[in-house]
Amino acid sequence: MKTDKIYFGAAYYDEYLPYDRIDQDMKMMKKAGMNVIRIAESTWSTLEPQEGIYDFSHLDRMLDAASQYGLDVIVGTPTYAIPTWLAKKSEDILALTEDGQEIYGRRQNMDLTSPVYLKYAENIIRVLLEHVHQHPRVIGYQIDNETHHYHTAGPRAQAMFVDTLKDQYPDIQDFNHEFGLDYWSNRVNDWSDFPDVRGTINGSLAAEFEKFQRKLVTDFHHWQASIIEEYRRPNQFITHNFDFEWHGYSLGLQPDANSYDSAACMTVAGGDIYHPSQSKLTGAEITACGNILRGLKRDNYLILETQAQGNIEWLPYPGQLRLCAYSHLANGANSVMYWHWHSIHNAIESYWKGVLSHDFSENATYREAMKIGDELQTFGDRLKNLQKKNDVAILLDHESLTGLKQFPVGSLGAAGYNTIVRWIGDALYRANIEYDMIYTQDMHLDEYKLVFVPALYSASEDTLNRLAQYAADGGHLVVTFRSGFADEHIKIYSDTQPHILHQCLGINYNQFTIPEDVSLDCHFDTAASGAGVHEWMDLVMPDTAVSLADYHHTSWNRYAAVTENRYGAGTAYYLGCYFDTDALDSLISYIARNASIECSNTRFPVIIKKGINDYRHMVWYYLNYSSEIQTVTYKGGPGHQLLDNTDVQSEEELTLHPWDLIIIEEK
Amino acid sequence: MKTDKIYFGAAYYDEYLPYDRIDQDMKMMKKAGMNVIRIAESTWSTLEPQEGIYDFSHLDRMLDAASQYGLDVIVGTPTYAIPTWLAKKSEDILALTEDGQEIYGRRQNMDLTSPVYLKYAENIIRVLLEHVHQHPRVIGYQIDNETHHYHTAGPRAQAMFVDTLKDQYPDIQDFNHEFGLDYWSNRVNDWSDFPDVRGTINGSLAAEFEKFQRKLVTDFHHWQASIIEEYRRPNQFITHNFDFEWHGYSLGLQPDANSYDSAACMTVAGGDIYHPSQSKLTGAEITACGNILRGLKRDNYLILETQAQGNIEWLPYPGQLRLCAYSHLANGANSVMYWHWHSIHNAIESYWKGVLSHDFSENATYREAMKIGDELQTFGDRLKNLQKKNDVAILLDHESLTGLKQFPVGSLGAAGYNTIVRWIGDALYRANIEYDMIYTQDMHLDEYKLVFVPALYSASEDTLNRLAQYAADGGHLVVTFRSGFADEHIKIYSDTQPHILHQCLGINYNQFTIPEDVSLDCHFDTAASGAGVHEWMDLVMPDTAVSLADYHHTSWNRYAAVTENRYGAGTAYYLGCYFDTDALDSLISYIARNASIECSNTRFPVIIKKGINDYRHMVWYYLNYSSEIQTVTYKGGPGHQLLDNTDVQSEEELTLHPWDLIIIEEK
Amino acid sequence: MKTDKIYFGAAYYDEYLPYDRIDQDMKMMKKAGMNVIRIAESTWSTLEPQEGIYDFSHLDRMLDAASQYGLDVIVGTPTYAIPTWLAKKSEDILALTEDGQEIYGRRQNMDLTSPVYLKYAENIIRVLLEHVHQHPRVIGYQIDNETHHYHTAGPRAQAMFVDTLKDQYPDIQDFNHEFGLDYWSNRVNDWSDFPDVRGTINGSLAAEFEKFQRKLVTDFHHWQASIIEEYRRPNQFITHNFDFEWHGYSLGLQPDANSYDSAACMTVAGGDIYHPSQSKLTGAEITACGNILRGLKRDNYLILETQAQGNIEWLPYPGQLRLCAYSHLANGANSVMYWHWHSIHNAIESYWKGVLSHDFSENATYREAMKIGDELQTFGDRLKNLQKKNDVAILLDHESLTGLKQFPVGSLGAAGYNTIVRWIGDALYRANIEYDMIYTQDMHLDEYKLVFVPALYSASEDTLNRLAQYAADGGHLVVTFRSGFADEHIKIYSDTQPHILHQCLGINYNQFTIPEDVSLDCHFDTAASGAGVHEWMDLVMPDTAVSLADYHHTSWNRYAAVTENRYGAGTAYYLGCYFDTDALDSLISYIARNASIECSNTRFPVIIKKGINDYRHMVWYYLNYSSEIQTVTYKGGPGHQLLDNTDVQSEEELTLHPWDLIIIEEK
Repeated sequence: MKTDKIYFGAAYYDEYLPYDRIDQDMKMMKKAGMNVIRIAESTWSTLEPQEGIYDFSHLDRMLDAASQYGLDVIVGTPTYAIPTWLAKKSEDILALTEDGQEIYGRRQNMDLTSPVYLKYAENIIRVLLEHVHQHPRVIGYQIDNETHHYHTAGPRAQAMFVDTLKDQYPDIQDFNHEFGLDYWSNRVNDWSDFPDVRGTINGSLAAEFEKFQRKLVTDFHHWQASIIEEYRRPNQFITHNFDFEWHGYSLGLQPDANSYDSAACMTVAGGDIYHPSQSKLTGAEITACGNILRGLKRDNYLILETQAQGNIEWLPYPGQLRLCAYSHLANGANSVMYWHWHSIHNAIESYWKGVLSHDFSENATYREAMKIGDELQTFGDRLKNLQKKNDVAILLDHESLTGLKQFPVGSLGAAGYNTIVRWIGDALYRANIEYDMIYTQDMHLDEYKLVFVPALYSASEDTLNRLAQYAADGGHLVVTFRSGFADEHIKIYSDTQPHILHQCLGINYNQFTIPEDVSLDCHFDTAASGAGVHEWMDLVMPDTAVSLADYHHTSWNRYAAVTENRYGAGTAYYLGCYFDTDALDSLISYIARNASIECSNTRFPVIIKKGINDYRHMVWYYLNYSSEIQTVTYKGGPGHQLLDNTDVQSEEELTLHPWDLIIIEEK
Repeated sequence: MKTDKIYFGAAYYDEYLPYDRIDQDMKMMKKAGMNVIRIAESTWSTLEPQEGIYDFSHLDRMLDAASQYGLDVIVGTPTYAIPTWLAKKSEDILALTEDGQEIYGRRQNMDLTSPVYLKYAENIIRVLLEHVHQHPRVIGYQIDNETHHYHTAGPRAQAMFVDTLKDQYPDIQDFNHEFGLDYWSNRVNDWSDFPDVRGTINGSLAAEFEKFQRKLVTDFHHWQASIIEEYRRPNQFITHNFDFEWHGYSLGLQPDANSYDSAACMTVAGGDIYHPSQSKLTGAEITACGNILRGLKRDNYLILETQAQGNIEWLPYPGQLRLCAYSHLANGANSVMYWHWHSIHNAIESYWKGVLSHDFSENATYREAMKIGDELQTFGDRLKNLQKKNDVAILLDHESLTGLKQFPVGSLGAAGYNTIVRWIGDALYRANIEYDMIYTQDMHLDEYKLVFVPALYSASEDTLNRLAQYAADGGHLVVTFRSGFADEHIKIYSDTQPHILHQCLGINYNQFTIPEDVSLDCHFDTAASGAGVHEWMDLVMPDTAVSLADYHHTSWNRYAAVTENRYGAGTAYYLGCYFDTDALDSLISYIARNASIECSNTRFPVIIKKGINDYRHMVWYYLNYSSEIQTVTYKGGPGHQLLDNTDVQSEEELTLHPWDLIIIEEK
Repeated sequence: MKTDKIYFGAAYYDEYLPYDRIDQDMKMMKKAGMNVIRIAESTWSTLEPQEGIYDFSHLDRMLDAASQYGLDVIVGTPTYAIPTWLAKKSEDILALTEDGQEIYGRRQNMDLTSPVYLKYAENIIRVLLEHVHQHPRVIGYQIDNETHHYHTAGPRAQAMFVDTLKDQYPDIQDFNHEFGLDYWSNRVNDWSDFPDVRGTINGSLAAEFEKFQRKLVTDFHHWQASIIEEYRRPNQFITHNFDFEWHGYSLGLQPDANSYDSAACMTVAGGDIYHPSQSKLTGAEITACGNILRGLKRDNYLILETQAQGNIEWLPYPGQLRLCAYSHLANGANSVMYWHWHSIHNAIESYWKGVLSHDFSENATYREAMKIGDELQTFGDRLKNLQKKNDVAILLDHESLTGLKQFPVGSLGAAGYNTIVRWIGDALYRANIEYDMIYTQDMHLDEYKLVFVPALYSASEDTLNRLAQYAADGGHLVVTFRSGFADEHIKIYSDTQPHILHQCLGINYNQFTIPEDVSLDCHFDTAASGAGVHEWMDLVMPDTAVSLADYHHTSWNRYAAVTENRYGAGTAYYLGCYFDTDALDSLISYIARNASIECSNTRFPVIIKKGINDYRHMVWYYLNYSSEIQTVTYKGGPGHQLLDNTDVQSEEELTLHPWDLIIIEEK
């Protein structure tokens, strides 16, 4: 979705304020150049304090203020946190999970299959939409918020799951065979014998149940969207605030929802990206997670939440708030919205601080937001709807994520999949190679010169054949360890590994281990030799491939670690192990050169991003992710520096101040 | 309460002995100079082996032996460990907590609101008191033992809690507003919708429930005391064995009871202090926790339990048992009683060893106790009822403790409050500045020249105003980070921080973070510069204050870390961060000098304590907490060394042997 | 039990295969020289897919193939993993434990006291035995698999437990006294008041319940054996796959079953030994756990499971598979069987890899198995039924293991007992002193010159008297800390420690602590001085003993650490603390010399083992547990090297290649 401006703003909760501040806050927002607020999400209990009793006062105050101050409004459906009275309605509203029965208190613990929950949720959505949909400042709707499946596993959900298995497997013997249930006498000879899936030791069955749970989220999103469609005006969008696997901050693909499938019912993808700050700020999350969002609809996206002050340890150094805001835009976002405007005075997120602290005064963070707002009012029009055209893609897959949660790589644990994806993605980021995230549901491989396939543990034969064909057709394919190992039900393939791909890769292996005192002997770059190998190593035997790196170890040195193979018109690489990033950086350069990918000599901490703006001009961002001054040679055509309003020539030396940036629009 | 001698003895359990040893044990006690035993606490099942069937045989044997050997007896009510038959009486006797239903086995897991428990408890107290109260050797009663609320959260307790809220908030909207329940739709529109508080994510509500739970303990203590009052003879005292937050040993204020409120019903405060030993023995717990006890009734107190051999790793080095015994007396205790006389041969505390080991022989610990007993018989009369008059106080508050459990400081976790209190208290201890602990319930500030307010997170406006007035009136007030931040319901104040105090402190701040690579630039003592800052830092902006220390850091160096402000007739200091103790020691010296506090040049490991004895003479203790010989100059007037029975002159050099001490009574 | 050949093979699961591979697999097995498969264990759901409906097809296919290819077959009863339909039969089939109700999924979580489980188990055993017992290739039966008590603690099991107490203690007062239940009012005055034992804080009671739980396993094994006895042909054996305390691999004595008591109903002991690999391979587990198995029936034993590829990090270096196979045989095993033939394509053990990987191709591990099989076919006849005659024994005891789980040694935790046993056993192993494991149930001490008693925490007076008598009669007795401390109900002895043994040891102690900065001053070998003392130290006071080592520490240096005492015709040593293995190695040498134990100058990593073969010839194994070449002097008589078929003379220098071995049969 294209927007007519960059949206800059924050979530705003009149409901949570200790006293009436709407006028003061709107004035402060305007002063900071903000133009949008997000409201209503999570406020069910103030909107419907008792069943069927509605209170629109907060909503109306905010909409009136938005009109008065000329702010746009995104309205969220309030369904992800239920009121106390609703929790008392039925015992099945809160999820029953592996850890037992949820009790009331926190958000996001309901059972998405509960008819009682769904009935009241539909009602409040309709009541809300009816009330707001004609308001001229309402530009769009957010479905729920960060919806997950909440690990729901009660009897109703499990019965629904068994029904999906019955549909897939008319003959129960096929089911037993594909899932390998004979093991440890877990065979199910009659569907009525189906045991509580929470106890299963069968990774295939556990993964299938997680897939089913993700589908519950997809269905819930499509159901909410269908209700909103009855009300929304044509120029009002539907979005969702997608979140990411959480590791104290946004890590990567969200395991507990299938964002790609959910996004199909939406006008525009939205999301929240949170990241380390201060000396740990690298911008890597803004790119990796931003690319996930951009891939959901292959279009620009909205940042509906990101940190202002955020967690206590995230308080940004001077310059960092602004650097991050532009990094989002440089990556294809059309909005930067903070969670949240004001810090909260009670409850669990009191120290997840907003733009304003608890005292509502102008603080250092607010003052930096003012600077951003001022600049965006000046030249935001040159930055919006940035079109990205990348030659490189990373392939993502939810079932592989689940597979590697069931069967972890070394000590990487449940986060192994995203860790490996980020291992690849962050190396591209450091090399200033911009890339797309694509999904196995929609493999438009032919648009790319170079495709990375990290840890595609679970893959159908169709997927694997298409990857091989991509290489045969001239593509550059990079496959890592743990790819093509198991089928779509996490059943391990029982012939030569990697299944199907071994032909295009020109290698095979039948053993692997966890490396101990193993390093690489690198032929693609002898300087990279000595890099440590960690967590996983396939004992690779090249067939037609040539070895790019071997293992340095007394017992394993007969095996290859990294290989390259000409296949048809293309080239296929295999990365048989997880190794130090220095060597990966070098390997990525080697591969990129082979694939004729445009490579910059400039590397992280200076990040370069670019895209085409609405005026068909190329816009270049040079972002300094360090506390040192950096110099860099500008590689675009003659242009105009937007921030200081000066001209710049090609090959001109640019000076970047700490945590600062330069934006150049080519002429 | 004044006592007519120093009580020296142990808890004694005839019930737990593998064979009848009363005569042998009493003889050994007498030989060790002991004069008191504590009995009956935790022995309900031997006293009432079946409902209504009483067995006084153990009790009578012990009382008879006490008479025969001239030992005094403290009788504990046995209510903190219930018999098996009582546990079977009703399902609600054992507490239902956040972790589910307690089951029988360990002590201290009953529901203090259970009518069945209370009925049987009252009966056994009356039966016991009836039996013993006329016995001439019984000098006092201990109510229960280390009573906590045991996290009781069953339906009855929760209903009682909601009733207290109804009383406080006739209008439920006021309740919702003060507790910020609109957040995440947690609003309660009708008291009947009140959800299970165990699930709450609202720190204010969770803290209010903990306050309610502590009140259950207070009520329980007052109820037991009222029963005992019906029986006790005028010269028999009522006490309780108060314990402390536990960190493998006594840390500080007990979170699960309100000791100050409980103590109101007692004649004398008692408690148990356990501490590290061997090379980790510092005596700091004896002072910090002893001061807490002395503050409960602003009077001398009883050490009802402390370690003899204790835990396996606590076995005292030669000298340490005696050093600790005198440290208690030096701090205002009138008793040193060990838990316990003999080591136990079965069950969980078999390796929490008593004076005697399992073999009952005379061991090294017993022989050291003999020495103590011998000395106390010689000159204990000069040491009892020591009156302490301190110019310095630390202010304590239970609600602040809970608040910082809900919203921890950095990585300090649930123990953060006591950690910060000890950070201050132990610096005073090291500097040989004796201090009192006072409570927000009873802020007699005007008795002190210098008052420390560590992490007073939760504070009413009245409390804050009184602190400010103390400074205005000429006091020296030292306030640390995290003080005055939230009100009495843990609702964060929404104006300039620190609320109210910012005026007397002459500073304000609206941002804080967790320090990373931050140190101090100290203006009060340049040698203290470089001290590391940890866990928390307020970004302090002086208004009228002068900075005593700034942050050393590329981004945060524009902010102050420690400030000093003249305010009215007094001075107010703000410590905006948690920093290395070396710098704190230096700062404490600076502040103490400014406040004209008497300061010694002698520092830890030599500890100096003093007080006025019953003969109106000053008694000086010099305690060597190290394994090296120490020399120190005696600063009192002409006196008499009690241990070696020699005279000493002012300014005389004293030689302290490892883990040894010198006691001087001025003439 | 003597066997007519070395059994070499693997567990084989036709049930788990993704497609029919029996013919291919049998051919590959034959090619690898394998001669036995283990089947049927854990396959109840394929054998009886619905109640009373039997499917013998997998079984018959495997038996037919065994006949065709001349493989022997061990048939396991399938009772340790129940079918889904059986789990639905009754709510009491799955165990109720301390952690709550087990749910279906994993194996080994049933309640062994469930009548419903036992009824169906008996039926399937009879159906299976009826079907197979006449088959000529069936050589024996395995009862269940790795049976534990699964922590079963439901109401029925607890009632049975109370019944055993009633039988032991007709007078409940005796029970209360022995278990010390007066402590914390835990007294049980009427058996009907007996509380849920899961809550107990009484270590004696908890230990007694564990002993009862182990007895459930013993009874279960004897019951299964009695059924099998009705069917088995005289030349068919009964065994069980005993496992070991698990620490990521086999550590030592299994806590959750009493292997010695169970083995009484069996023809031959069997077991599974898993161990670290790659650079962490030492062979110590093969010896320690193999000795435990050899002691169960004081006879040769079967290795029914050990790792082929095993866990991912266990993939053997070249040579290690073969080195381990021979190490088992050298220790008295008559079989080496892998778990398992093929890797599994679904479920929890997919990465516990077999001889074959998931692709079924010939891999490096398979090729090494081929070499072993080829060699065993050539000269296996000279290696079978190896008779071991050792002069040294270690005494084992289950109740002591439990006792030290209740009252752990320092930080050693629940595994403390086996850790201390291994501390002694592994020192013997490194010194090439072969030893037996003997059990307190069957103390044939007079067969040994030197007996080690590690951490015999729980010991009856009879046991202690027999140990003392052994020394008096001329034996060399080595007792460690924590021995003789408590009686058979974990009640601590109340006289001089170590109870009874203090006389033969010539020492006593009444205090102990956890060492901090303590080392040894060694008189038996001054070079061993400085060794660190860890986890535990008794403060030993010699009576008649001489000190072999004292503590080096300012406060504890007056106490002895290690002592030696002449007692009657023998010598008794006391090791009062846990110390660095270097000093232990030296002490073991000193003690072994004193006891006239044959000692080699060759030490680990070269391991020497020997025994008498069926031809009454001594067979010597020299095993190189390192990646370096080792040379060693052959100490046997003129012999024949079996592997390279050459002669060897006494005192000849042998060269051992990395992870390689030499076998010499004396002539």
